[in-house]
Order: sequence, then C-alpha cells, then structure tokens
Amino acid sequence: MKKISDSTINRLSKYFRTLERLKAKHIETISSDEIAEIDGVTSAQVRKDLSFFGTFGKRGLGYNIEDLKNIIGKILGLNKQWNVGIIGVGNIGMALIDYAEFKKRGFQIKLLLDSDENKIGKHVKNLEIKSFSEAITHLKKENIQIVVIAVPASAAQNVADVVTSAGIGAVLNFAPLNLKTPDGVMVKNENMSIELEALSYFLTNK
Amino acid sequence: MKKISDSTINRLSKYFRTLERLKAKHIETISSDEIAEIDGVTSAQVRKDLSFFGTFGKRGLGYNIEDLKNIIGKILGLNKQWNVGIIGVGNIGMALIDYAEFKKRGFQIKLLLDSDENKIGKHVKNLEIKSFSEAITHLKKENIQIVVIAVPASAAQNVADVVTSAGIGAVLNFAPLNLKTPDGVMVKNENMSIELEALSYFLTNK
Repeated sequence: MKKISDSTINRLSKYFRTLERLKAKHIETISSDEIAEIDGVTSAQVRKDLSFFGTFGKRGLGYNIEDLKNIIGKILGLNKQWNVGIIGVGNIGMALIDYAEFKKRGFQIKLLLDSDENKIGKHVKNLEIKSFSEAITHLKKENIQIVVIAVPASAAQNVADVVTSAGIGAVLNFAPLNLKTPDGVMVKNENMSIELEALSYFLTNK
Repeated sequence: MKKISDSTINRLSKYFRTLERLKAKHIETISSDEIAEIDGVTSAQVRKDLSFFGTFGKRGLGYNIEDLKNIIGKILGLNKQWNVGIIGVGNIGMALIDYAEFKKRGFQIKLLLDSDENKIGKHVKNLEIKSFSEAITHLKKENIQIVVIAVPASAAQNVADVVTSAGIGAVLNFAPLNLKTPDGVMVKNENMSIELEALSYFLTNK
C-alpha cells in the first residue's frame, strides 16, 4: 500500500466523526464539498484523502454516509476491539480511564499499571491497578496491543523499553519527550500544548 | 496574510520542538531534509510550510537553528505570555494544571472555575477554584485570553456560551462534541482518541 501521511489518517478520523453525526441525524448522502465545509478542509483534500483507499461515491450523487463511514472505520481498524493498557495512573491516566470516546471506538482499557505502592491493589472502574514491576506478565496475560504511557517524562523511556521488550508495537505517549523504540514500533505523541499553540497563532495573527 | 492550514500550524509546532531540542544540543544549523527526517514529513513539505511566512535559510547552508526557532516561535505567538482559564477541575483539568509544557510555552494558568460546591474554594497549585456562576467577572478580572473547557459533554455548550459572551475568542475544548460559537471565536478540539486511531490504523495495515 502507498505510504499514507499521518495528516491523512488524522483527517479520516475527523471525517469518520462527521459521518457518524450525520448518520445519527438520519442524513443519507453527502458530497465531498459538504464534508470539507464541516471539517474545515478543501473538497479536493477530502477526495484526495479518500482516493488512497479506492473509488467511493457516485459522480453527482456524493457518498452514501453509512457506506463511507463503514469503509473509513475499516481502514482505521475501528471495526475491531483493541486491548489497551495504561501505564501510570495519575491525573492523565485517570482522565483516560473515564474517557467514554475510547470505548465507543473499540479501545478497551484492560490493564492499569503503576509503580506507586500506594496505588497498586486499588481499583479504578473495576480494574485493579497492578504493579509495573510485573508489566511483561500482565501485558501478555491481558493480550494488550496498545500501551498508553502516562508517567512523568523521567520514567517514560524506561516504560517504553519494558513494554516494547514485551512485544508491544503501538504506543501512545503523553510524556513530553521523544521516545526511542525498536524498529517496527509505532509511537504517537499526544501533546496537549500543540492545539493551544494553534490558538495562540490565531490570536496573534487575527 | 494567506490562509494557512491547521496542519501547517501543527507542523510548525513540531518543527519548533525539534529546533529547541537541537539547540539544547548546541547544534547550529539544519537542512530541511534533516528537519523532515526527524519530524516524519517530506523536505518539500518543510520548505512549503516555511515559505508561507517568508524566505529563511541560505541555499546549501540550511537554516540557522536559533534564528528559525525564534521566527517560528514568533509566528506561533510563543514569544508572548497567554493567560489561560481552565473550566472544570476534574481529572483532565487537574492533569492540565500539572502540565509543565504549558508554562514552558508561555501559557499561564491564571483561573480555575468549577460549579461543584465541594471544589469551589479549594486550592490547586496556589490557585483557588472559583465558582463558575461568577465566570464573566473572573475571566475579565484575570484578563483571560484562552479558555480550556474540561467539563462533561452535557455542560460544555453552556460553558462555551458563557465564556464567549464574556469576550473569550479562543477555546480549547476537551469535551467530545462540536461546540457552536459566535463568528470570530476559534475553537480547537482536543480529542485524545484521534492518535489511538492512528495506532489502530498502523496495527491494521502493517
């Protein structure tokens, strides 16, 4: 498959949400112009993003919303269930456990790990916090596919080393540093400051 | 000024971080190829993103790292201090108060508001949680420029209505819904599921 850019994948996630909302309103078809308008991109961009994956829609009739939503969901792997482990049950970890959007998209939090003795053994939403010192055992037992790193920056590289040594190939990192990981491991960084910078850009240049 | 895409702005934030890290390593110059390699984009993309704002760098010599960092910082408005108010002191709000990256980038959290009587009056990091019922007074008194909405989805639209009526023009929204706001208000949505979807795409298509 052609190499698809991260931006294209992120936009597919946005289109998916737009289609989901339109479907909930019982709307049946939509044009690339309308998707573009709602998502704040150009219609050429919408068509280009979708063209990587095949030919959808009928000229002049637009896209069938349910079909396109299902196609994009399948491209993104949202038609499956993913087992997610959260490492670090601090404020960010707690916020993620409560985050309804994850479950809705098929991301099931199955494992909570921490290294704080005061937290280990406690329950959050029916999940017991287990010890990070036994990470490899727990990751395998729960068949975890995606790990979320929500520990302080000083501990994050060690966490990444341990989870990748256990065979984890996909990491969402909230710690503000670039993790070094073996080839074949995908790391996405969640930086909550990036969108604030888009706002300061807007305020500076408006 | 030409309309600059959100993706370009987000990439500038990434380049800024890359330049900052290189500067900390006392590296002085960098080519667009090298920036591209580190940030996972094409060098043509780097040059195009920068070209919107002028002509930088010398052919064959690349960019001076400190100069380019300062230029991008100024474009993004990171050379100023921004007063930020957080509405909703739950898990996400607490995580943001602790988020060192904000302060480092010039985003100063100056106001915490909540509507929970059990939280109002308590202190977090030397800031007293004030009542959301007096939002407009507090937003003006603290000269808040950017508001972070970290309340449940059911309360978020009301919060947006109140803060925009107080003249707030920039909102970072963590609630999973599209807010309706008056013309001229910029809303950025922070959706922590989007990057997980990029990971599920990777796991599905690798």
